[in-house]
Amino acid sequence: MEKMDMLYEGKAKKIYGTDNKEEVIVYYKDDATAFNGVKKASIEDKGVLNNSITAMLFELLEKEGVKTHFIKKLNDREQLCKKVDIVPLEVIVRNIAAGSMAKRLGLEEGKKLQTTVFEISYKNDDLNDPLMNDYHAVAMGITTFEELKTIYNIAKIVNDTLKKFFLEQGITLVDFKIEFGKTSDGEILLADEISPDTCRLWDAKTGEKLDKDRFRKDLGNVKEAYIEILDRINNSK
Amino acid sequence: MEKMDMLYEGKAKKIYGTDNKEEVIVYYKDDATAFNGVKKASIEDKGVLNNSITAMLFELLEKEGVKTHFIKKLNDREQLCKKVDIVPLEVIVRNIAAGSMAKRLGLEEGKKLQTTVFEISYKNDDLNDPLMNDYHAVAMGITTFEELKTIYNIAKIVNDTLKKFFLEQGITLVDFKIEFGKTSDGEILLADEISPDTCRLWDAKTGEKLDKDRFRKDLGNVKEAYIEILDRINNSK
Repeated sequence: MEKMDMLYEGKAKKIYGTDNKEEVIVYYKDDATAFNGVKKASIEDKGVLNNSITAMLFELLEKEGVKTHFIKKLNDREQLCKKVDIVPLEVIVRNIAAGSMAKRLGLEEGKKLQTTVFEISYKNDDLNDPLMNDYHAVAMGITTFEELKTIYNIAKIVNDTLKKFFLEQGITLVDFKIEFGKTSDGEILLADEISPDTCRLWDAKTGEKLDKDRFRKDLGNVKEAYIEILDRINNSK
Repeated sequence: MEKMDMLYEGKAKKIYGTDNKEEVIVYYKDDATAFNGVKKASIEDKGVLNNSITAMLFELLEKEGVKTHFIKKLNDREQLCKKVDIVPLEVIVRNIAAGSMAKRLGLEEGKKLQTTVFEISYKNDDLNDPLMNDYHAVAMGITTFEELKTIYNIAKIVNDTLKKFFLEQGITLVDFKIEFGKTSDGEILLADEISPDTCRLWDAKTGEKLDKDRFRKDLGNVKEAYIEILDRINNSK
């Protein structure tokens, strides 16, 4: 398998083509951004850590029957994945109020919710990734009600699996963002990454934040938190 | 039936108690506000016009089997209604992109939608009536999935009925906002008002705006537009 031209560069990853037109190489960068790119920094080895964490979580999810774009980890910063067209939706699952939901609805961070919350946002930097509902997404031609049903079904399995898994490592899964892609034959796969960049993870005993909120809120020890997550996942084996 | 103390004053209406604890008098004011109360004015006779328009539209909806709070029109500015606790949700139905949806999602006003859009916002002035989805509303304890099902079912009938009715009067129903209330025995009723304050109504031939957007956008002839709507509804009889 040969690495070819870069196809796309995002905020935290680069995508390269390969000599197999159905496969790409995903390269994890150290770049960190927050607040729609307003805050920027580099976190040493973040790419290495998130590549490892994502690889292990996607392997776990595959075992639970979730179809993902992940094929295998290639090296420290790269993984081989199935080539997909990303559905321009951020799918957010929330077990506890935090972040944009808490702010938008006037809820205190940490508030218990009376049901698990599933949210979709329109992936569009110019519009600041606005919250939308299923009707908006279908009305705009982004997706169909049928595809959304598949997406929510997968999101629920991801949440059930990861909530249980993280709790076994002494971590509360507060919320997370996932993305989906479509293969050339129209299959919906879990794509992108699952890492402390895309999850809120709190130490189950102390409530200490072990995720990107340390960067967003200038809490310090960002890299150390990501290492802590990787260590706990490694210890689960 | 005796009019008693004022129970509540909103931006466009006042609610008075009556000697029947299950009934209230709704008084329609001339006050107009926009952009969450930032823009304020008085539009001469708006209360009289909206009282008449709402009364006729609620009568029409009752005939279609929609249960509403409306009992009868009492005089120029007042109607007798069933007393309800308002569910703190604004339910918005959109047939064509306009207003906050167009702005939020980067759509041109007037864009055709691939499905009718149903939206809910949290009725909360301090938070600027934020858009939410069903999970948010249930997670916060505002309502239940079962109540939402009832609410969307009614919203669909209201849209089907009014879209057809307005088109017969040469008017395109672009979108509208409705509210729901719960009676003391828990029944969900269509409440509040339906008027050019709460609908976008465009002349079907010319596209001329015949609603509160004339006030929001300083287009002039606000009162004349509301009179035009009332006249066309009256001519339908």
